[in-house]
Amino acid sequence: MALVVQKYGGSSLESAERIRSVAERIVATKKQGHDVVVVCSAMGDTTDELLDLAAQVNPVPPAREMDMLLTAGERISNALVAMAIESFGAEAQSFTGSQAGVLTTERHGNARIVDVTPARVRDALDNGKICLVAGFQGVNKDTRDVTTLGRGGSDTTAVALAAALGADVCEIYSDVDGVYTADPRIVPNAQKLEKLSFEEMLELAAVGSKILVLRSVEYARAFNVPLRVRSSYSNDPGTLVAGSMEDIPVEEAVLAGVATDVSEAKVTVLGIPDLPGEAAKVFRVIADAEINIDMVLQNISSLEDGRTDITFTCPRADGPRAMELLKKLQDDGSCKNVLYDDQIGKVSLVGAGMKSHPGVTAVFCEALRDAGVNIELISTSEIRISVLIRENEVEKSVRALHDAFDLGGEEQATVYAGTGR
Amino acid sequence: MALVVQKYGGSSLESAERIRSVAERIVATKKQGHDVVVVCSAMGDTTDELLDLAAQVNPVPPAREMDMLLTAGERISNALVAMAIESFGAEAQSFTGSQAGVLTTERHGNARIVDVTPARVRDALDNGKICLVAGFQGVNKDTRDVTTLGRGGSDTTAVALAAALGADVCEIYSDVDGVYTADPRIVPNAQKLEKLSFEEMLELAAVGSKILVLRSVEYARAFNVPLRVRSSYSNDPGTLVAGSMEDIPVEEAVLAGVATDVSEAKVTVLGIPDLPGEAAKVFRVIADAEINIDMVLQNISSLEDGRTDITFTCPRADGPRAMELLKKLQDDGSCKNVLYDDQIGKVSLVGAGMKSHPGVTAVFCEALRDAGVNIELISTSEIRISVLIRENEVEKSVRALHDAFDLGGEEQATVYAGTGR
Repeated sequence: MALVVQKYGGSSLESAERIRSVAERIVATKKQGHDVVVVCSAMGDTTDELLDLAAQVNPVPPAREMDMLLTAGERISNALVAMAIESFGAEAQSFTGSQAGVLTTERHGNARIVDVTPARVRDALDNGKICLVAGFQGVNKDTRDVTTLGRGGSDTTAVALAAALGADVCEIYSDVDGVYTADPRIVPNAQKLEKLSFEEMLELAAVGSKILVLRSVEYARAFNVPLRVRSSYSNDPGTLVAGSMEDIPVEEAVLAGVATDVSEAKVTVLGIPDLPGEAAKVFRVIADAEINIDMVLQNISSLEDGRTDITFTCPRADGPRAMELLKKLQDDGSCKNVLYDDQIGKVSLVGAGMKSHPGVTAVFCEALRDAGVNIELISTSEIRISVLIRENEVEKSVRALHDAFDLGGEEQATVYAGTGR
Repeated sequence: MALVVQKYGGSSLESAERIRSVAERIVATKKQGHDVVVVCSAMGDTTDELLDLAAQVNPVPPAREMDMLLTAGERISNALVAMAIESFGAEAQSFTGSQAGVLTTERHGNARIVDVTPARVRDALDNGKICLVAGFQGVNKDTRDVTTLGRGGSDTTAVALAAALGADVCEIYSDVDGVYTADPRIVPNAQKLEKLSFEEMLELAAVGSKILVLRSVEYARAFNVPLRVRSSYSNDPGTLVAGSMEDIPVEEAVLAGVATDVSEAKVTVLGIPDLPGEAAKVFRVIADAEINIDMVLQNISSLEDGRTDITFTCPRADGPRAMELLKKLQDDGSCKNVLYDDQIGKVSLVGAGMKSHPGVTAVFCEALRDAGVNIELISTSEIRISVLIRENEVEKSVRALHDAFDLGGEEQATVYAGTGR
């Protein structure tokens, strides 16, 4: 008998019919003799509908009230799944984030979990009940105000609960049946991975894989909670994310896959005086605006004028704000010009095998060269290579890299009706 | 400076536009220098939509989960109104029933308020904030589970909060601008009443007036909270419900109005042995099924067979269940036959003036006789006369009584687009 935490995304709960289907799966898990805790996202488009209503009553809605509003979505799906479970003859009890003891920081809209004290959930499990916990939400440990955890917050709720309850596995259900070597919509023979280390999944999530949010993987790694990425539309065992890369025998280490990200923009700051502290000024104004920088490149300074250029990428959504701040630096004479380019894409290769296989970078660059793709920027980690290229060359690049590293399988990958999460 | 509690019904909050209009009214009240606490019902059809979803996943949904589900509706409207208020420059803070200290019994779906400890609301008021409290919901004082208060629960929340906070008035907003001498859709010259005593409002609510639920009036009377029934679509001061009938000078006591109820059915149990305890059997099975009985009539027993007949009315929704139980009594020989009639209606005249004006019953019966309406059953209280008649004669009877007692005004009553609550 194991303790299983299951998290279902909005696409798995988009209708009464889907909710009943999910409930059947939950009851089946319980009947296998396991204790089951379920974390639900809001149904289908509920969150978008609530956001739309909020925008109609107040274009700049206060964050505390926004959290009060949005958390209603998970309460609804949670209660409906509990009802559906009872209709299949099992006992269920739903809990809000607060009732489940999900304590967070006070930052509305993007709170962090600081502690999980699931005493009520534990009691209900001990009484043979299937427990449902509303995802994405918690309660400010000081003020007792309702908070939300930001994008992918339900994954984080599930992992944090699994850690607090000492669960054997945390299953993340969506409409995708696992982690693939590439997006099957781009690469038809992409293969589903059976197992990935936490580090590999972290790198994949960081470079654009949407299958799990970075924060939930970080949490799982920190508390060593095995994750299983599965589809609520099939019985495929999915992909297991567990264990450290260090524990993978060298000869078994492989390349995990190719990920893409077309949500970033490239900013180039030209003519920064090549003196200590000048580049720091650029990054300080961006940091103070809470804009995340991803890739960074600083050129060698020009011998003529003793000035240098810095290029970095940041989320496109933050691009206009970044430009506004940097234009002020330009006005102050801290740089000569600022350029903006949002027609870029990032392609990354990730895998523990990279450590032990020399020449990966060479093959990587040759594959893109053969596909006629120009590389604008490169950044690497121990188990990842990322390049910045033109946005309209992303798909061709993914296929070229997938082929060059022989990641494809014999069969076409299964793609389900719903796409994305 | 006063402390005002305002309650807005679902029809007043059915769209973003209506929510902004309500927020404007709330902010205007605050700007007049008053402290304001607002209780919101769920938006328009939200509750019905949630009930529909629940029915799709489980035809007999567990009551605890139903409460978890339905309370989401008030959280949504509450947060949206708070956002709208902030857009008009005032500070607002929303509270769930639990956060506002609305403690209830454990009966899910129809819990009773046992205490209100609004310390957080009081603090927020002291900090100059407009407070919003989700109506219809509370928290079980023992288990901390979320509960709901049953039909009209938001009115009860508002009155209970007004009592706990010592508010000067509790304003109940809907799409009707006051209590009328009759339904203006039936009687075009029905007049809006300026003031009513608690007892009169209680009688009106008990005999079918939908404007306030009985329980909220009982609560207001017990804690002496003045109620003002108003429309969120106009600036009319509405109707004040306050004070005891005993305090009305005899010469000022008048008739308040005519109310109707077509939600009941008539059950007749024939041939009950006229012995002690036999009639009690009938009422016991009905009471055990938690079916409320309204009017009752027992005929004189027949001399021939020493048996008697009992007629009573109960909600139509409970009719089939009542019949099933009584048919069993018939099978046991405790009666000879059971008849069911759901084509009936009840018309009532209410008013403190009845006490001091002899002959009201005579005028009442004559008015119906002149209208050609047959009375099937009569019941009275100190300040009320109710009769059971054919359902299709209800409107004609209301008009006849309204005329006979000279309740009409010179002008046509204003009827707003939305009808009912």
